[in-house]
Amino acid sequence: MKKFAVVLSGNGVYDGAEIHEATLTLLAIKKLGADYSIFAPDIAQHHVVNHLTGEEMPETRNVLVESARIARGKISNLNSFNAREFDALIFPGGFGVAKNLSTWAFNGPDCKVNSDVEKAIKDMSSLQKPIGALCISPVVIAKILGNVEVTIGQDKATAEAVEKTGARHVNTTHGDVVRDSHRPIFTTPCYMLDADIVQIADGAENIVKAILAELS
Amino acid sequence: MKKFAVVLSGNGVYDGAEIHEATLTLLAIKKLGADYSIFAPDIAQHHVVNHLTGEEMPETRNVLVESARIARGKISNLNSFNAREFDALIFPGGFGVAKNLSTWAFNGPDCKVNSDVEKAIKDMSSLQKPIGALCISPVVIAKILGNVEVTIGQDKATAEAVEKTGARHVNTTHGDVVRDSHRPIFTTPCYMLDADIVQIADGAENIVKAILAELS
Repeated sequence: MKKFAVVLSGNGVYDGAEIHEATLTLLAIKKLGADYSIFAPDIAQHHVVNHLTGEEMPETRNVLVESARIARGKISNLNSFNAREFDALIFPGGFGVAKNLSTWAFNGPDCKVNSDVEKAIKDMSSLQKPIGALCISPVVIAKILGNVEVTIGQDKATAEAVEKTGARHVNTTHGDVVRDSHRPIFTTPCYMLDADIVQIADGAENIVKAILAELS
Repeated sequence: MKKFAVVLSGNGVYDGAEIHEATLTLLAIKKLGADYSIFAPDIAQHHVVNHLTGEEMPETRNVLVESARIARGKISNLNSFNAREFDALIFPGGFGVAKNLSTWAFNGPDCKVNSDVEKAIKDMSSLQKPIGALCISPVVIAKILGNVEVTIGQDKATAEAVEKTGARHVNTTHGDVVRDSHRPIFTTPCYMLDADIVQIADGAENIVKAILAELS
Protein backbone atom coordinates (compact mmCIF):
# COMPACT_ATOMS: atom_id res chain seq x y z
CA MET A 1 0.00 0.00 0.00
CA LYS A 2 1.44 3.37 -1.03
CA LYS A 3 1.95 5.80 1.81
CA PHE A 4 1.45 9.59 1.56
CA ALA A 5 2.71 12.20 4.01
CA VAL A 6 0.20 15.08 4.08
CA VAL A 7 1.52 18.42 5.39
CA LEU A 8 -1.01 20.83 6.93
CA SER A 9 -0.50 24.51 7.77
CA GLY A 10 -3.26 25.12 10.33
CA ASN A 11 -7.04 24.85 10.06
CA GLY A 12 -8.93 27.46 8.05
CA VAL A 13 -8.41 29.06 4.65
CA TYR A 14 -7.41 32.58 5.79
CA ASP A 15 -4.71 31.69 8.33
CA GLY A 16 -4.16 27.95 7.93
CA ALA A 17 -4.82 24.93 5.74
CA GLU A 18 -7.87 25.13 3.47
CA ILE A 19 -10.24 22.65 5.14
CA HIS A 20 -11.98 21.30 2.01
CA GLU A 21 -8.68 20.79 0.18
CA ALA A 22 -7.15 19.06 3.21
CA THR A 23 -10.16 16.80 3.86
CA LEU A 24 -10.63 15.94 0.18
CA THR A 25 -6.93 15.12 -0.22
CA LEU A 26 -7.23 12.64 2.67
CA LEU A 27 -10.41 11.21 1.09
CA ALA A 28 -8.75 10.83 -2.34
CA ILE A 29 -5.75 9.02 -0.87
CA LYS A 30 -7.89 6.45 0.99
CA LYS A 31 -10.43 6.12 -1.82
CA LEU A 32 -7.68 5.30 -4.32
CA GLY A 33 -6.33 2.53 -2.08
CA ALA A 34 -3.36 4.30 -0.49
CA ASP A 35 -2.79 5.43 3.10
CA TYR A 36 -1.61 8.62 4.80
CA SER A 37 0.11 10.11 7.81
CA ILE A 38 -0.45 13.78 8.63
CA PHE A 39 2.25 16.28 9.65
CA ALA A 40 2.49 19.96 10.55
CA PRO A 41 5.28 22.13 11.92
CA ASP A 42 5.19 22.92 15.65
CA ILE A 43 5.26 26.71 15.26
CA ALA A 44 3.02 29.68 16.05
CA GLN A 45 0.63 30.76 13.30
CA HIS A 46 1.57 34.06 11.67
CA HIS A 47 -1.76 35.40 12.97
CA VAL A 48 -5.36 34.38 13.67
CA VAL A 49 -8.13 35.57 11.32
CA ASN A 50 -11.82 35.71 12.27
CA HIS A 51 -13.26 33.83 9.27
CA LEU A 52 -16.67 35.47 9.74
CA THR A 53 -15.44 39.08 9.52
CA GLY A 54 -11.99 38.73 7.91
CA GLU A 55 -10.46 40.70 10.78
CA GLU A 56 -7.35 39.72 12.70
CA MET A 57 -8.02 38.40 16.22
CA PRO A 58 -5.85 39.23 19.26
CA GLU A 59 -4.92 35.56 19.82
CA THR A 60 -2.08 33.18 19.18
CA ARG A 61 -2.59 29.64 17.87
CA ASN A 62 -0.14 26.84 17.07
CA VAL A 63 0.01 25.33 13.57
CA LEU A 64 0.44 21.72 14.79
CA VAL A 65 -2.31 22.04 17.42
CA GLU A 66 -4.82 23.60 15.01
CA SER A 67 -3.94 21.16 12.20
CA ALA A 68 -4.71 18.35 14.68
CA ARG A 69 -8.40 19.33 14.35
CA ILE A 70 -8.44 18.24 10.70
CA ALA A 71 -6.39 15.14 11.60
CA ARG A 72 -8.71 14.14 14.51
CA GLY A 73 -5.62 14.13 16.73
CA LYS A 74 -3.59 11.74 14.56
CA ILE A 75 -0.77 14.03 13.51
CA SER A 76 2.99 14.31 13.97
CA ASN A 77 5.46 17.14 14.27
CA LEU A 78 6.92 17.72 10.80
CA ASN A 79 10.41 17.69 12.31
CA SER A 80 9.99 13.89 12.72
CA PHE A 81 9.24 13.35 9.01
CA ASN A 82 11.48 10.74 7.38
CA ALA A 83 11.36 10.71 3.57
CA ARG A 84 12.46 7.06 3.47
CA GLU A 85 9.17 5.99 5.14
CA PHE A 86 6.88 7.54 2.50
CA ASP A 87 6.14 7.09 -1.20
CA ALA A 88 4.85 10.62 -1.73
CA LEU A 89 4.54 14.01 -0.02
CA ILE A 90 1.53 16.28 -0.57
CA PHE A 91 0.55 19.81 0.45
CA PRO A 92 -3.09 20.98 0.49
CA GLY A 93 -3.46 24.77 0.12
CA GLY A 94 -4.79 27.66 2.19
CA PHE A 95 -3.16 30.90 3.27
CA GLY A 96 -1.35 28.92 5.97
CA VAL A 97 1.06 27.76 3.26
CA ALA A 98 1.89 31.40 2.44
CA LYS A 99 1.79 32.68 6.04
CA ASN A 100 2.96 29.76 8.24
CA LEU A 101 4.90 27.30 6.05
CA SER A 102 6.54 30.25 4.29
CA THR A 103 6.43 34.05 4.18
CA TRP A 104 5.17 34.10 0.56
CA ALA A 105 2.10 36.21 1.49
CA PHE A 106 4.44 39.01 2.62
CA ASN A 107 7.63 38.57 0.58
CA GLY A 108 6.54 36.71 -2.58
CA PRO A 109 9.51 35.17 -4.41
CA ASP A 110 11.90 36.54 -1.75
CA CYS A 111 10.08 34.54 0.94
CA LYS A 112 11.63 32.32 3.58
CA VAL A 113 10.37 28.73 3.84
CA ASN A 114 10.03 26.96 7.21
CA SER A 115 13.11 24.76 7.67
CA ASP A 116 11.12 21.52 8.32
CA VAL A 117 9.12 22.12 5.15
CA GLU A 118 12.29 22.83 3.17
CA LYS A 119 13.97 19.66 4.46
CA ALA A 120 10.90 17.50 3.66
CA ILE A 121 10.77 18.81 0.06
CA LYS A 122 14.54 18.48 -0.48
CA ASP A 123 14.69 14.97 1.04
CA MET A 124 11.81 13.67 -1.12
CA SER A 125 13.25 15.39 -4.17
CA SER A 126 16.72 13.91 -3.70
CA LEU A 127 15.12 10.43 -3.44
CA GLN A 128 13.18 11.24 -6.66
CA LYS A 129 9.88 10.58 -4.87
CA PRO A 130 6.71 12.41 -5.98
CA ILE A 131 5.61 15.68 -4.39
CA GLY A 132 2.10 17.07 -4.87
CA ALA A 133 0.94 20.62 -4.18
CA LEU A 134 -2.59 22.07 -4.35
CA CYS A 135 -3.80 25.67 -4.65
CA ILE A 136 -1.12 28.14 -3.43
CA SER A 137 1.29 25.39 -2.22
CA PRO A 138 3.19 25.22 -5.53
CA VAL A 139 4.84 28.57 -4.62
CA VAL A 140 6.76 26.79 -1.85
CA ILE A 141 7.85 23.99 -4.19
CA ALA A 142 8.96 26.62 -6.72
CA LYS A 143 10.89 28.57 -4.08
CA ILE A 144 12.76 25.44 -2.89
CA LEU A 145 13.31 23.61 -6.21
CA GLY A 146 13.58 26.63 -8.54
CA ASN A 147 13.73 25.11 -12.00
CA VAL A 148 10.36 23.33 -12.02
CA GLU A 149 7.08 23.50 -13.95
CA VAL A 150 4.03 24.28 -11.78
CA THR A 151 0.52 25.73 -11.86
CA ILE A 152 -1.35 28.01 -9.50
CA GLY A 153 -4.27 28.33 -11.95
CA GLN A 154 -4.56 31.56 -13.92
CA ASP A 155 -3.81 34.44 -11.57
CA LYS A 156 -1.36 36.62 -13.52
CA ALA A 157 0.35 38.38 -10.61
CA THR A 158 0.93 35.13 -8.70
CA ALA A 159 2.11 33.35 -11.87
CA GLU A 160 4.64 36.14 -12.53
CA ALA A 161 5.85 36.01 -8.95
CA VAL A 162 6.23 32.22 -9.22
CA GLU A 163 8.39 32.63 -12.32
CA LYS A 164 10.73 34.98 -10.39
CA THR A 165 11.79 31.92 -8.34
CA GLY A 166 13.13 30.35 -11.54
CA ALA A 167 10.08 28.11 -12.01
CA ARG A 168 7.90 27.97 -15.14
CA HIS A 169 4.16 28.60 -14.72
CA VAL A 170 1.49 26.79 -16.75
CA ASN A 171 -2.08 28.17 -16.86
CA THR A 172 -4.70 25.58 -15.95
CA THR A 173 -8.38 25.23 -15.15
CA HIS A 174 -10.47 23.11 -12.71
CA GLY A 175 -9.14 19.61 -12.13
CA ASP A 176 -6.02 19.98 -14.30
CA VAL A 177 -2.77 18.53 -12.99
CA VAL A 178 0.67 19.69 -14.17
CA ARG A 179 3.63 17.33 -13.93
CA ASP A 180 7.09 18.78 -14.36
CA SER A 181 8.82 17.39 -17.47
CA HIS A 182 11.86 16.21 -15.56
CA ARG A 183 10.83 15.53 -12.00
CA PRO A 184 7.76 13.94 -10.33
CA ILE A 185 6.37 17.27 -9.11
CA PHE A 186 2.58 17.53 -9.43
CA THR A 187 0.45 20.68 -8.99
CA THR A 188 -3.26 21.54 -9.35
CA PRO A 189 -5.08 24.88 -8.83
CA CYS A 190 -8.15 24.05 -6.63
CA TYR A 191 -9.33 27.21 -4.78
CA MET A 192 -6.78 29.42 -6.60
CA LEU A 193 -9.63 29.37 -9.15
CA ASP A 194 -13.19 30.41 -8.29
CA ALA A 195 -14.24 26.83 -7.58
CA ASP A 196 -16.99 24.90 -5.83
CA ILE A 197 -16.38 21.97 -3.51
CA VAL A 198 -17.03 19.35 -6.23
CA GLN A 199 -14.23 20.89 -8.32
CA ILE A 200 -11.94 20.68 -5.27
CA ALA A 201 -12.79 16.98 -4.87
CA ASP A 202 -11.95 16.48 -8.57
CA GLY A 203 -8.63 18.35 -8.28
CA ALA A 204 -7.60 16.39 -5.17
CA GLU A 205 -8.57 13.08 -6.75
CA ASN A 206 -6.79 13.88 -10.03
CA ILE A 207 -3.51 14.85 -8.37
CA VAL A 208 -3.49 11.78 -6.09
CA LYS A 209 -4.35 9.57 -9.08
CA ALA A 210 -1.47 11.08 -11.11
CA ILE A 211 0.96 10.49 -8.25
CA LEU A 212 -0.19 6.88 -7.82
CA ALA A 213 0.19 6.30 -11.58
CA GLU A 214 3.78 7.58 -11.30
CA LEU A 215 4.41 5.13 -8.46
CA SER A 216 2.86 2.10 -10.15
CA MET B 1 -32.52 23.06 -7.31
CA LYS B 2 -33.12 21.65 -3.80
CA LYS B 3 -31.67 23.75 -1.00
CA PHE B 4 -30.16 22.36 2.20
CA ALA B 5 -29.48 24.27 5.40
CA VAL B 6 -26.38 22.77 7.05
CA VAL B 7 -25.95 23.48 10.78
CA LEU B 8 -22.42 23.44 12.20
CA SER B 9 -21.37 23.37 15.86
CA GLY B 10 -17.80 24.67 15.68
CA ASN B 11 -14.72 23.32 13.92
CA GLY B 12 -13.05 20.20 15.29
CA VAL B 13 -14.32 16.82 16.50
CA TYR B 14 -13.63 17.23 20.25
CA ASP B 15 -15.26 20.62 20.84
CA GLY B 16 -17.07 21.45 17.59
CA ALA B 17 -18.30 20.06 14.28
CA GLU B 18 -16.48 16.99 12.96
CA ILE B 19 -14.55 18.42 10.02
CA HIS B 20 -14.68 15.41 7.68
CA GLU B 21 -18.43 14.91 8.25
CA ALA B 22 -19.10 18.61 7.68
CA THR B 23 -16.96 18.86 4.53
CA LEU B 24 -18.25 15.59 3.08
CA THR B 25 -21.88 16.62 3.72
CA LEU B 26 -21.26 19.81 1.73
CA LEU B 27 -19.58 17.76 -1.02
CA ALA B 28 -22.47 15.26 -1.17
CA ILE B 29 -25.06 18.03 -1.45
CA LYS B 30 -23.29 19.75 -4.38
CA LYS B 31 -22.28 16.48 -6.06
CA LEU B 32 -25.90 15.29 -6.06
CA GLY B 33 -27.06 18.50 -7.75
CA ALA B 34 -28.45 20.39 -4.76
CA ASP B 35 -27.19 23.55 -3.03
CA TYR B 36 -26.56 24.60 0.57
CA SER B 37 -26.40 27.49 3.00
CA ILE B 38 -24.45 27.07 6.22
CA PHE B 39 -25.60 28.17 9.69
CA ALA B 40 -24.31 28.07 13.25
CA PRO B 41 -25.50 29.60 16.51
CA ASP B 42 -23.72 32.76 17.69
CA ILE B 43 -22.74 31.41 21.13
CA ALA B 44 -19.57 30.64 23.05
CA GLN B 45 -18.22 27.09 22.73
CA HIS B 46 -18.65 25.02 25.90
CA HIS B 47 -14.83 24.79 25.99
CA VAL B 48 -11.77 24.57 23.75
CA VAL B 49 -9.92 21.24 23.43
CA ASN B 50 -6.32 20.91 22.25
CA HIS B 51 -6.84 18.24 19.56
CA LEU B 52 -3.18 17.15 19.80
CA THR B 53 -3.20 16.38 23.54
CA GLY B 54 -6.91 16.07 24.34
CA GLU B 55 -6.50 18.65 27.11
CA GLU B 56 -8.76 21.64 27.71
CA MET B 57 -7.22 24.98 26.70
CA PRO B 58 -7.64 28.21 28.72
CA GLU B 59 -9.38 29.99 25.82
CA THR B 60 -12.84 30.94 24.67
CA ARG B 61 -14.02 30.55 21.08
CA ASN B 62 -17.33 31.33 19.38
CA VAL B 63 -19.29 28.61 17.58
CA LEU B 64 -20.32 30.82 14.63
CA VAL B 65 -16.82 32.27 14.20
CA GLU B 66 -15.10 28.86 14.31
CA SER B 67 -17.72 27.23 12.06
CA ALA B 68 -16.96 30.01 9.54
CA ARG B 69 -13.59 28.29 8.95
CA ILE B 70 -15.33 25.25 7.45
CA ALA B 71 -17.71 27.55 5.55
CA ARG B 72 -14.88 29.73 4.12
CA GLY B 73 -16.70 32.73 5.61
CA LYS B 74 -20.06 32.02 3.94
CA ILE B 75 -22.18 31.33 6.99
CA SER B 76 -25.18 32.87 8.77
CA ASN B 77 -26.30 33.15 12.36
CA LEU B 78 -28.73 30.29 12.99
CA ASN B 79 -31.19 32.78 14.53
CA SER B 80 -31.85 34.04 10.95
CA PHE B 81 -32.82 30.56 9.68
CA ASN B 82 -36.22 30.49 7.94
CA ALA B 83 -37.59 26.99 7.37
CA ARG B 84 -39.74 28.23 4.45
CA GLU B 85 -36.57 29.00 2.43
CA PHE B 86 -35.15 25.46 2.58
CA ASP B 87 -36.08 21.98 1.38
CA ALA B 88 -34.07 20.15 4.03
CA LEU B 89 -32.07 20.69 7.23
CA ILE B 90 -28.97 18.63 8.04
CA PHE B 91 -26.62 18.31 11.02
CA PRO B 92 -23.09 16.88 10.65
CA GLY B 93 -21.72 15.41 13.92
CA GLY B 94 -18.84 16.10 16.29
CA PHE B 95 -18.82 16.72 20.05
CA GLY B 96 -19.96 20.28 19.30
CA VAL B 97 -23.47 18.90 18.83
CA ALA B 98 -23.38 17.42 22.35
CA LYS B 99 -21.48 20.32 23.97
CA ASN B 100 -22.54 23.48 22.06
CA LEU B 101 -25.85 22.74 20.29
CA SER B 102 -27.03 20.87 23.38
CA THR B 103 -25.78 19.73 26.78
CA TRP B 104 -26.09 16.01 25.84
CA ALA B 105 -22.41 15.32 26.69
CA PHE B 106 -23.11 16.34 30.31
CA ASN B 107 -26.81 15.59 30.87
CA GLY B 108 -27.68 12.88 28.32
CA PRO B 109 -31.45 12.56 27.83
CA ASP B 110 -32.05 15.36 30.38
CA CYS B 111 -30.05 17.78 28.20
CA LYS B 112 -31.07 21.27 27.15
CA VAL B 113 -30.99 22.08 23.42
CA ASN B 114 -29.95 25.50 22.12
CA SER B 115 -33.13 27.49 21.39
CA ASP B 116 -32.16 28.33 17.76
CA VAL B 117 -31.48 24.64 17.08
CA GLU B 118 -34.77 23.64 18.71
CA LYS B 119 -36.71 26.19 16.65
CA ALA B 120 -35.05 25.09 13.37
CA ILE B 121 -35.93 21.43 14.03
CA LYS B 122 -39.50 22.20 15.12
CA ASP B 123 -40.14 24.57 12.20
CA MET B 124 -38.89 22.05 9.60
CA SER B 125 -40.80 19.26 11.30
CA SER B 126 -44.07 21.18 11.39
CA LEU B 127 -43.68 21.85 7.64
CA GLN B 128 -43.00 18.10 7.18
CA LYS B 129 -39.67 18.86 5.54
CA PRO B 130 -36.77 16.36 5.80
CA ILE B 131 -34.17 16.60 8.57
CA GLY B 132 -30.88 14.67 8.40
CA ALA B 133 -28.50 13.99 11.28
CA LEU B 134 -25.06 12.33 11.19
CA CYS B 135 -22.99 10.72 13.95
CA ILE B 136 -24.08 12.00 17.41
CA SER B 137 -26.55 14.61 16.02
CA PRO B 138 -29.54 12.24 16.16
CA VAL B 139 -29.57 12.68 19.97
CA VAL B 140 -30.70 16.28 19.48
CA ILE B 141 -33.44 15.24 17.04
CA ALA B 142 -34.57 12.57 19.53
CA LYS B 143 -34.59 15.07 22.40
CA ILE B 144 -36.72 17.56 20.45
CA LEU B 145 -39.07 15.22 18.55
CA GLY B 146 -39.27 12.37 21.08
CA ASN B 147 -41.22 9.66 19.29
CA VAL B 148 -38.87 9.08 16.35
CA GLU B 149 -36.73 6.25 14.98
CA VAL B 150 -33.00 7.06 14.79
CA THR B 151 -29.52 5.50 14.73
CA ILE B 152 -26.28 6.45 16.40
CA GLY B 153 -24.61 3.22 15.21
CA GLN B 154 -24.12 0.46 17.78
CA ASP B 155 -22.96 2.07 21.01
CA LYS B 156 -25.15 0.45 23.69
CA ALA B 157 -24.93 3.18 26.34
CA THR B 158 -25.71 5.97 23.88
CA ALA B 159 -28.53 3.93 22.29
CA GLU B 160 -30.10 3.37 25.72
CA ALA B 161 -29.79 7.06 26.57
CA VAL B 162 -31.42 7.94 23.22
CA GLU B 163 -34.37 5.68 24.03
CA LYS B 164 -34.90 7.53 27.32
CA THR B 165 -35.98 10.57 25.24
CA GLY B 166 -38.88 8.49 23.90
CA ALA B 167 -37.11 7.71 20.60
CA ARG B 168 -36.51 4.21 19.21
CA HIS B 169 -32.91 3.26 18.37
CA VAL B 170 -31.94 1.07 15.40
CA ASN B 171 -28.47 -0.52 15.26
CA THR B 172 -26.66 0.18 12.00
CA THR B 173 -23.27 -0.14 10.35
CA HIS B 174 -21.18 1.98 7.92
CA GLY B 175 -23.20 3.88 5.33
CA ASP B 176 -26.62 2.76 6.61
CA VAL B 177 -29.38 5.38 6.73
CA VAL B 178 -32.44 5.05 8.97
CA ARG B 179 -35.67 6.85 8.01
CA ASP B 180 -38.38 7.14 10.64
CA SER B 181 -41.53 5.22 9.60
CA HIS B 182 -43.78 8.24 9.97
CA ARG B 183 -41.70 11.34 9.44
CA PRO B 184 -38.90 12.34 7.02
CA ILE B 185 -36.18 12.11 9.69
CA PHE B 186 -32.93 10.56 8.39
CA THR B 187 -29.94 9.45 10.48
CA THR B 188 -26.59 7.73 9.76
CA PRO B 189 -23.78 6.73 12.17
CA CYS B 190 -20.53 7.98 10.52
CA TYR B 191 -17.77 8.44 13.17
CA MET B 192 -20.01 7.01 15.93
CA LEU B 193 -18.56 3.81 14.44
CA ASP B 194 -14.82 3.18 14.11
CA ALA B 195 -14.76 4.47 10.53
CA ASP B 196 -12.30 5.72 7.94
CA ILE B 197 -12.82 8.82 5.83
CA VAL B 198 -14.15 6.84 2.81
CA GLN B 199 -16.90 5.40 5.02
CA ILE B 200 -17.77 8.94 6.15
CA ALA B 201 -18.03 10.05 2.51
CA ASP B 202 -20.37 7.07 1.88
CA GLY B 203 -22.53 7.88 4.91
CA ALA B 204 -22.83 11.55 3.96
CA GLU B 205 -23.65 10.70 0.34
CA ASN B 206 -26.21 8.06 1.33
CA ILE B 207 -28.10 10.33 3.70
CA VAL B 208 -28.19 13.25 1.23
CA LYS B 209 -29.30 10.83 -1.52
CA ALA B 210 -32.11 9.49 0.70
CA ILE B 211 -33.29 13.02 1.51
CA LEU B 212 -33.26 14.02 -2.17
CA ALA B 213 -35.23 10.87 -3.05
CA GLU B 214 -37.83 11.91 -0.44
CA LEU B 215 -38.02 15.35 -2.04
CA SER B 216 -38.30 14.14 -5.64
